[in-house]
Amino acid sequence: MSRVVKLAVIPGDGIGPEVVTEAEKVLDAVTAGSDVTFEKTRFSLGAARYLETGDTLTDEDLDAIGAHDAILLGAVGGLPGDPRLKDANIERGLLLKLRFELDHYVNLRPSRLYPGAPGPLADPGEIDFVVVREGTEGPYVGNGGAIRKGTPHEVANETSVNTAFGVERVVRYAFALAEKRRKKLTLVHKTNVLVHAGAIWKRIVDEVALEYPYVAVDYLHVDAATIFLVTHPSRFDVIVTDNLFGDILTDLAGAVTGGIGLAASGNINPDGAFPSMFEPVHGSAPDIAGQQKADPTAAILSVALLLDHLGLGAEGARVQRAVEEDIAARTGARTTEQTGAAIIARLQA
Amino acid sequence: MSRVVKLAVIPGDGIGPEVVTEAEKVLDAVTAGSDVTFEKTRFSLGAARYLETGDTLTDEDLDAIGAHDAILLGAVGGLPGDPRLKDANIERGLLLKLRFELDHYVNLRPSRLYPGAPGPLADPGEIDFVVVREGTEGPYVGNGGAIRKGTPHEVANETSVNTAFGVERVVRYAFALAEKRRKKLTLVHKTNVLVHAGAIWKRIVDEVALEYPYVAVDYLHVDAATIFLVTHPSRFDVIVTDNLFGDILTDLAGAVTGGIGLAASGNINPDGAFPSMFEPVHGSAPDIAGQQKADPTAAILSVALLLDHLGLGAEGARVQRAVEEDIAARTGARTTEQTGAAIIARLQA
Ligand SMILES: CC(C)[C@H](C(=O)O)[C@@H](O)C(=O)O
Ligand SMILES: CC(C)[C@H](C(=O)O)[C@@H](O)C(=O)O
Repeated sequence: MSRVVKLAVIPGDGIGPEVVTEAEKVLDAVTAGSDVTFEKTRFSLGAARYLETGDTLTDEDLDAIGAHDAILLGAVGGLPGDPRLKDANIERGLLLKLRFELDHYVNLRPSRLYPGAPGPLADPGEIDFVVVREGTEGPYVGNGGAIRKGTPHEVANETSVNTAFGVERVVRYAFALAEKRRKKLTLVHKTNVLVHAGAIWKRIVDEVALEYPYVAVDYLHVDAATIFLVTHPSRFDVIVTDNLFGDILTDLAGAVTGGIGLAASGNINPDGAFPSMFEPVHGSAPDIAGQQKADPTAAILSVALLLDHLGLGAEGARVQRAVEEDIAARTGARTTEQTGAAIIARLQA
Repeated sequence: MSRVVKLAVIPGDGIGPEVVTEAEKVLDAVTAGSDVTFEKTRFSLGAARYLETGDTLTDEDLDAIGAHDAILLGAVGGLPGDPRLKDANIERGLLLKLRFELDHYVNLRPSRLYPGAPGPLADPGEIDFVVVREGTEGPYVGNGGAIRKGTPHEVANETSVNTAFGVERVVRYAFALAEKRRKKLTLVHKTNVLVHAGAIWKRIVDEVALEYPYVAVDYLHVDAATIFLVTHPSRFDVIVTDNLFGDILTDLAGAVTGGIGLAASGNINPDGAFPSMFEPVHGSAPDIAGQQKADPTAAILSVALLLDHLGLGAEGARVQRAVEEDIAARTGARTTEQTGAAIIARLQA
């Protein structure tokens, strides 16, 4: 019985196309000869498209992307400070719009320190945790505004919106994940200061915890969590947190586990109502674009997450293993393509 | 000409009293025989006081504290999860109330990696930067609320309030500081996502920058800033940022520079309308309270900041130097008192 998966590919800007090229090759290699075929549609989106056409993400784009089974994204964003992009907010208008419109309420970001990966910590211990970051609300909603803008009397407000609906579904996902892992869940927030947003997170975690008696639950303020990420990262199994704290913690976690060149992520709609989107945590890095300097590993690990999500766990595990073997054997500098080829060689060995 | 400084001392909870005791001894030692006398008033505030009397910070407390020239605070906060503290929020009702009521709009947090200090980074390089954290607005204002509380339809909002008045004064302080240091200022925010709050920070930094042509200005998103704090902390000189990002970055910075046992801070009202307050960045650590296990160094370095602030720069520098010498010579475990005594011995040498 053969299966066709419709995959939307958004290479994006900067190093996006380079890393996505390698990720696609890995996807092709791991599914070659199997009964799954990926039917790919390429979408030209990002700063380059905006500069050409003035469009960030049209309704037609969104409809077309939404008709796929899954999305692979490289990175989007132009040169910082480019005056022609002054009025564009590619991040909000494209990346966050995709996450919000496609209801990617779970932003899944695994952090593992692979043997052989270079990290900044002198004595990291074992690192293997997953951040389950809320993806569709919190301080990311764009809710706010300013009065007396540009004057000495300006007041600018930015509102974090947290709903029981939105918090509960991501918290449930995190508990279910913790139950399949080492059975430990840490809520990260700042409940002592952000009393309104904090209270709803705390309440819902406490309530859902009753249904998971075998999952040990603890709580850390976000500031304390950053300390533990550098002094005792092995204490974490599953972290559940809001959109903004998740953003901060996962960049730090990426750094601690060998750099965001290795950090993969999935923007997941667990209900399956919309296609989920897989992307490296890193950005478009325009300064090194087109030079074959980017590490495609994060994009390739995102393919492993994509395969898992599609129920192709065996294929995902093969990609994962090939990457691990490659990382353990890395020496010296390689081009983007060389790294991709090395991982494919491991896959095929 | 002799000078009397009226100092309010708030030992607080947990390890607060132990570290403040050593800090006071250092203060006494460094001013002994000089023409400055510290007239101290002790205030019993914190979880212990709340449990006894039900009071967190009364108007009388606030008036009395406000009549002093400066404040030395240990740490406040009871045992996490203590059911008797369920309805108290000591952090908001006491610590943040002091910062807000006494208009501590500069939360000054220097980060230095002292020679000999143990840190988690394999190759930290030189670390010497100062975080100028806004202290009276942003997401800390407590502005927000919830509807349908406790139900599946709850919506909880938390609003960050940012004013041109509030942002400009702290940004000006940061530029003036950068000019006296290595002339580099980094704004940290998340302007690509928090568009309303981010825009006012960006605008004001850009405007004030015009008055400081010799200060190099750059910008980092908060997530990227956490990466640099562990991969390249020497890139920072002065960081200016909002209340929440400053909270997160300074705990991480503390961890990176040898632990928050060494991190000092000043809650400063530069206008002098209210007394400034000096406190270690660490909390009350009730788990190790009363055991002489706490490191008083952060409290002692806070005394150095206090002396500086009062125009007693020579005395502040002596404390600073004594601490540096002591850190360089540290071996094995010591009691809180032994560390205090060792630093005083250096002072008097
Ligand atoms: C580019 C930006 C909008 C995005 C975010 O803040 O979520 C990025 O930092 C990430 O973590 O995926
Ligand atoms: C205790 C808490 C309210 C406080 C803060 O968030 O400011 C603390 O973390 C700090 O950094 O001084």
